[in-house]
Amino acid sequence: MTKDLTLAIDAMGGDAGPEPVVEGVALAQRNGLKAKVLFFGDERKLKPLVNEARGLSDVEIRHAGNVVSMTDKPMHVLRRGRDTSMWTAMSAVESGEAHAVVSGGNTGALMAVARMQLKLIEGIDRPAITALWPTMRGRSLVLDVGANVEADENQLVQFAIMGESFFRTLMGVEKPTVGLLNVGAEDLKGHELIRTAARVLREADPDMAFEGFVEGNDISKGTVDVVVTDGFSGNIALKSAEGAARLVGGWVREALQGTINAKFGSLFMAPGLRKLKDRIDPSSNNGGVFLGVNGIVVKSHGGADARGVASAVNMAAGLARQPFRDEVAETVKAVMRRRERMGAPTASSDKIKEAV
Amino acid sequence: MTKDLTLAIDAMGGDAGPEPVVEGVALAQRNGLKAKVLFFGDERKLKPLVNEARGLSDVEIRHAGNVVSMTDKPMHVLRRGRDTSMWTAMSAVESGEAHAVVSGGNTGALMAVARMQLKLIEGIDRPAITALWPTMRGRSLVLDVGANVEADENQLVQFAIMGESFFRTLMGVEKPTVGLLNVGAEDLKGHELIRTAARVLREADPDMAFEGFVEGNDISKGTVDVVVTDGFSGNIALKSAEGAARLVGGWVREALQGTINAKFGSLFMAPGLRKLKDRIDPSSNNGGVFLGVNGIVVKSHGGADARGVASAVNMAAGLARQPFRDEVAETVKAVMRRRERMGAPTASSDKIKEAV
Repeated sequence: MTKDLTLAIDAMGGDAGPEPVVEGVALAQRNGLKAKVLFFGDERKLKPLVNEARGLSDVEIRHAGNVVSMTDKPMHVLRRGRDTSMWTAMSAVESGEAHAVVSGGNTGALMAVARMQLKLIEGIDRPAITALWPTMRGRSLVLDVGANVEADENQLVQFAIMGESFFRTLMGVEKPTVGLLNVGAEDLKGHELIRTAARVLREADPDMAFEGFVEGNDISKGTVDVVVTDGFSGNIALKSAEGAARLVGGWVREALQGTINAKFGSLFMAPGLRKLKDRIDPSSNNGGVFLGVNGIVVKSHGGADARGVASAVNMAAGLARQPFRDEVAETVKAVMRRRERMGAPTASSDKIKEAV
Repeated sequence: MTKDLTLAIDAMGGDAGPEPVVEGVALAQRNGLKAKVLFFGDERKLKPLVNEARGLSDVEIRHAGNVVSMTDKPMHVLRRGRDTSMWTAMSAVESGEAHAVVSGGNTGALMAVARMQLKLIEGIDRPAITALWPTMRGRSLVLDVGANVEADENQLVQFAIMGESFFRTLMGVEKPTVGLLNVGAEDLKGHELIRTAARVLREADPDMAFEGFVEGNDISKGTVDVVVTDGFSGNIALKSAEGAARLVGGWVREALQGTINAKFGSLFMAPGLRKLKDRIDPSSNNGGVFLGVNGIVVKSHGGADARGVASAVNMAAGLARQPFRDEVAETVKAVMRRRERMGAPTASSDKIKEAV
């Protein structure tokens, strides 16, 4: 990371307002982030927070008088949201002033604003949202987790290419493994279009370490680095897993606090339990990236605390200066050309509705 | 449960052969199950196991010379599988000799055999497989978890009716709450057909406690008693959740065994930890029921141990004598009649492929 990195931060978008956002940036900087930070939002609210925050350096406040609310329709924001902190922060990326933007605002609006201002990468039909997922072997990437309710076979192929390139960039893994999420039962080998996508990836992208189909439980196992699926299944997989993790976490708490003996016993386990708590803590994996637009856009969870914001900001910084967009555009072009020569059935794109 | 209950058990279908099956039935009987049990399978293998098993009573062995393997295609089993333990066990339900069947065999084959012999309930287009899911509030039912890769709006409505009736029967809850699994983001209100299914349930089934859409994390929360979805999403939700639970379980084990201190500390927590282990133990929720056929068919996990088999057998016994099939047929008929009057868009059933 070089010193002249600039990040645009939508300081107003999160559920709790600007406080955890400013705190999160300060935390990231105290922990070594070297970047100039532009805070977009209400100057009167931001100034005292910026002045108070410990360890903040090299920041600027850019006044934006309006905020996108969680219930604003994307269309409404596109038409009348040019004075919002979200829009103006995105503009800083569009103009080249900032290398990446982080926002905790309304996902649909952020996606619409990103597409409108940054445009899609050449050859990409739809953007996808990523999630980093803790696994038994480290972390895996899942996409799409909610940009589109459906995806045809070409879009799944594009998601795979983007996800692979992204994972290589973010995690420094030379040849990430990729799998398509499917159901396992022998007689339900999944939808036709998933099977076509698998065939295209296998035949038209020889450089990819494509491992075929994976199932829901493979995500947490870490069977592959990149798990590709449509936004409906990805969202359901992610939220079902979160729910189950929280359920088991609750059971663990009960087991530890059940009796005086248990409480006493747990004293001896303090280091292990602290590690366990950190692992279950969702803030360490905060930050969904919008892949497919010409620029780095990181969606922070609306309810993220300062630690969560810091993790999203660090992710933005890690991605901001990488040649990742060109790689994606080139690979997609090459794969789609080969795919046409394969004569695989074409996407029935009229069946697919767009979300945003 | 009356004394003259008879259960047909496919003793050969599971991964580990007949041993855990016979042991599981013995365990269930030792724990109070009152039922006559017919074991279907290889007499020479079953006889010594039955003679050795502690606490078995009122059992008969019915010889079946062949076994359905995990890789047999359903079609193959339908054509040439009449001498298998699976087929003959199902026949005992079809003939009325047994009230329910339990099998740990190949899911696709079992579904095909059930449909062929028992036929679908009047008004039901597709069967569905259920899963009982532990939640923060008790247990919820999820269906379909893998009988069909897709489901149109009418099928989702039928799944909801079957699931509600089933939950009432199994759990003794007078008015179970029902939700449709969907994605939450404001701008992705799910597929068109899920929205239509919601409208039909709301308007055409006034007796159902239908609560609208739920998200993946609502499953483990126990937000509703019955979660309805297609077999693709249901399978992915279930397996993603299982994977996450196992991941967190592994972290907990690490925390408990990490240091000498931790091991010492965990001694004090033994009762709580035992309870935790029981809760994470999948065998207590073993048993997926095939809803939609004229008879009670319980699919035990292929790898279930004796405890898992006992839980599937108890589930079969609890369902076997209930008037649950007539209730489903009547409700489906009434709802579909009202649905036609609503003039909601019809199912595009040509788009939907059948799995089995």
